[in-house]
Amino acid sequence: MTENAVFSQNKVLTIDTMNPKVKNVEYAVRGPIVQRAVQIEKELREGVKKPFTEVIKANIGDAHAMGQQPITFFRQVLALCSYPELLKDNMFPEDAKSRARRILQACGGSSLGAYSASQGIDCVRQDVARYIERRDGGVPCDPDNVYLTTGASDGIVTMLKLLVCGEGASKTGVMISIPQYPLYSAALAELGAVQVNYYLNEEKCWSMDLSELERSLAEARKHCNPKVLCIINPGNPTGQVQSRQCIEDVIRFAAKEHLFLMADEVYQDNVYAEGCQFHSFKKVLFELGPQYSNTVELASFHSTSKCYMGECGFRGGYMEVINMDPEVKDQLTKLVSVRLCPPVPGQALMDLVVNSPQPGEPSYTTFMKERTATLRLLAEKAKLTEEILNTVPGITCNPVQGAMYSFPNISLPQKAIKEAKALGQAPDMFYCMKMLEETGICLVPGSGFGQKDGTYHFRMTILPPTDKLKILLAKVKEFHQKFTQQYS
Amino acid sequence: MTENAVFSQNKVLTIDTMNPKVKNVEYAVRGPIVQRAVQIEKELREGVKKPFTEVIKANIGDAHAMGQQPITFFRQVLALCSYPELLKDNMFPEDAKSRARRILQACGGSSLGAYSASQGIDCVRQDVARYIERRDGGVPCDPDNVYLTTGASDGIVTMLKLLVCGEGASKTGVMISIPQYPLYSAALAELGAVQVNYYLNEEKCWSMDLSELERSLAEARKHCNPKVLCIINPGNPTGQVQSRQCIEDVIRFAAKEHLFLMADEVYQDNVYAEGCQFHSFKKVLFELGPQYSNTVELASFHSTSKCYMGECGFRGGYMEVINMDPEVKDQLTKLVSVRLCPPVPGQALMDLVVNSPQPGEPSYTTFMKERTATLRLLAEKAKLTEEILNTVPGITCNPVQGAMYSFPNISLPQKAIKEAKALGQAPDMFYCMKMLEETGICLVPGSGFGQKDGTYHFRMTILPPTDKLKILLAKVKEFHQKFTQQYS
Repeated sequence: MTENAVFSQNKVLTIDTMNPKVKNVEYAVRGPIVQRAVQIEKELREGVKKPFTEVIKANIGDAHAMGQQPITFFRQVLALCSYPELLKDNMFPEDAKSRARRILQACGGSSLGAYSASQGIDCVRQDVARYIERRDGGVPCDPDNVYLTTGASDGIVTMLKLLVCGEGASKTGVMISIPQYPLYSAALAELGAVQVNYYLNEEKCWSMDLSELERSLAEARKHCNPKVLCIINPGNPTGQVQSRQCIEDVIRFAAKEHLFLMADEVYQDNVYAEGCQFHSFKKVLFELGPQYSNTVELASFHSTSKCYMGECGFRGGYMEVINMDPEVKDQLTKLVSVRLCPPVPGQALMDLVVNSPQPGEPSYTTFMKERTATLRLLAEKAKLTEEILNTVPGITCNPVQGAMYSFPNISLPQKAIKEAKALGQAPDMFYCMKMLEETGICLVPGSGFGQKDGTYHFRMTILPPTDKLKILLAKVKEFHQKFTQQYS
Repeated sequence: MTENAVFSQNKVLTIDTMNPKVKNVEYAVRGPIVQRAVQIEKELREGVKKPFTEVIKANIGDAHAMGQQPITFFRQVLALCSYPELLKDNMFPEDAKSRARRILQACGGSSLGAYSASQGIDCVRQDVARYIERRDGGVPCDPDNVYLTTGASDGIVTMLKLLVCGEGASKTGVMISIPQYPLYSAALAELGAVQVNYYLNEEKCWSMDLSELERSLAEARKHCNPKVLCIINPGNPTGQVQSRQCIEDVIRFAAKEHLFLMADEVYQDNVYAEGCQFHSFKKVLFELGPQYSNTVELASFHSTSKCYMGECGFRGGYMEVINMDPEVKDQLTKLVSVRLCPPVPGQALMDLVVNSPQPGEPSYTTFMKERTATLRLLAEKAKLTEEILNTVPGITCNPVQGAMYSFPNISLPQKAIKEAKALGQAPDMFYCMKMLEETGICLVPGSGFGQKDGTYHFRMTILPPTDKLKILLAKVKEFHQKFTQQYS
């Protein structure tokens, strides 16, 4: 054999030989439209002429990238933890220093650079537990049930990994809302689970209907083994805040139908609409009495990335598991140990979120001012977005009760739908791509989240600064009118 | 139906209904022995009397937890990035400030709290590429081939996810060294891939033998589809540093046998033994000429957790992919986008590692002093460990040429082996558990890494401070002698 002959013409890893489950993964929030937006930004920098001078990315809930300022106290403590020499400095308030000392004492070698326990730093989990207890009016929380995670995504995927198994008709089915946050569909594709869709009721402000849950479950039972029910509250991409009654119904349904509940509650502080209030699934579960609170299995997820913090880059988060079988918990602890630990700076940040400055502490006033201002601004922008979008003929936008997104319904002319389909594109992808090319605005088409057949939407974050948001909304309005005209 | 009747007696998620692949996962580095060590620590705190006053954890390569100090420059820049108000302060050197400004400018909203691109911050990937080029004597590196990761573990698991597929005889086989770092076996178990063992040659200082690779591959081809060859160099847990010739042989073997190479090179700065040198797989690949450098598919992994940094808690890392099919690369980029981005503080830290202070910059002298001192100390401790262990009758320790571990061979008396087996324990687990209970020293049994049948080992880090390491080694010696006597 000559030396050349040993070289195969084909690669080992090709699109045909790779893991087909990975090929099935889709993640619209960073999909083709965002890649095109990045290209356009590059073209603009290179001097290519466009009908706009700037790309406005309203595709992702990335608060700091949109100019939201970090909470001073959090960043002071993180700086102190990163470089403890600063503890000697007089420029930092005492409460920031004491938080930093407490976190460092809980770290191996008093360093953020040591691995933590795989479940997360003990004292952080204790602080999380106390935070949950305060939030839920005293419902007890055992720190042993708290797992720190690398953002909420990590916790969600880890729980799904434990839950998903089987083949054919006994393959695990996971019920997710449509529209959904595409982490869910992506994780299910990767794990090879069956995605079981239940539709939110757009007419009733994206609420969950019991009858729809029943329909969806009955349908799924014909071909798979539905074991899990996922809820996002406040809703992503849909911005609704579930009523207490609705949560109660969902819990009763899960108990009756023997489903494991996964509650994605990362927007728990992002509630804007009057009359709306965040109710944690855990609290409602315990209020339903021991028949429920001792039996229904629940995992709830939180994150440092949303709410008033918006600290996405730190990848901090936690999950609480309730009524988890002790043997399974051992397996969960083992599973997370393989990745050693969540990033320790993210754990420190999670600690600050659940153990924020208290009345009487030197940082309290500034902290509250910053927190309140951020949340008030978000509430204003939620209102503004809804109001302006609803002035556009052909756009109907539900109230943005919470979270960080509007998900308006858009009427698309038949001609546009035809043209899109001829190009092999989803009609709302066609619409959003055109908007990006003509206005520089980057939105995510509704098809990336799922929607009722024949309806079209886009997801738009409410995060840009108010002046920019107004420009953005005006441009969307103008574009929609022009688009409608062009294809009518 | 009464209300009570709706409550199922059984949980949804039990040890019998959970994902069986997760059950198959094992991770000895944080396994039962470490859990027992944590318990013992708790017992000591509670005043339980033990024949020792402190647990010494030599089970994991966690440098800072063992007292290694972080590099001042790195932590200064991280503090500046966390709390940019500090940029106004005069206490930080100019080069630290300029690095911080550069990183912040590359972050959305100039904040570590924004999501980065999923592949990692552009300028960090560029710095990584230049670092690789310098390291490899000018072999070109395209930043587009660099992916920042959440520690090296994340990159390794992501690559395996792409590679593993098929069922039955066409299931992907992944060749890993025995002994191995159990991340590999754990990931393969979770993905349902076939673990294909090749044995390192303990007699020849844990070198890789071509004949053994051939044997292992031929064997594997009878029942699966071996596609991947994983190498850890410098070795974990075995501490060997591969010769250039050996790497060349491995690359030729991979080319001939059509295998995808995964090179775990996280200990690339941890080379202590005289005559040993780190050769990257990429450099050797390019030195073999275009027949190889244009065809052999390679992924190489690095991390902020090891070398002189030891910053495990930040979960920073990168991987470089070479000769990856462009369609597959698109799939890889899509896959990593689902988790949004690696932790941004870890990305910043990775940047500092690959763009450290240069001659003429104000931090250069201190940086070099700290770096050199840490590596010199590690080299001393590597030597010390090997020497002392080899004075113990019944313990044979190969030179710790690199990495952070010794992996000595231990002779166990037949009586002890019998007693262990009667308890259903691996004999070296039995040995290590006894050592923990009697001395407070926490090691990981060789069975957690894999070893030739009938041989026994433990892995011990060389990280404890020299005085503590000496005590530890003396205790190991004493224990081994007592144990041998007791069971002879």
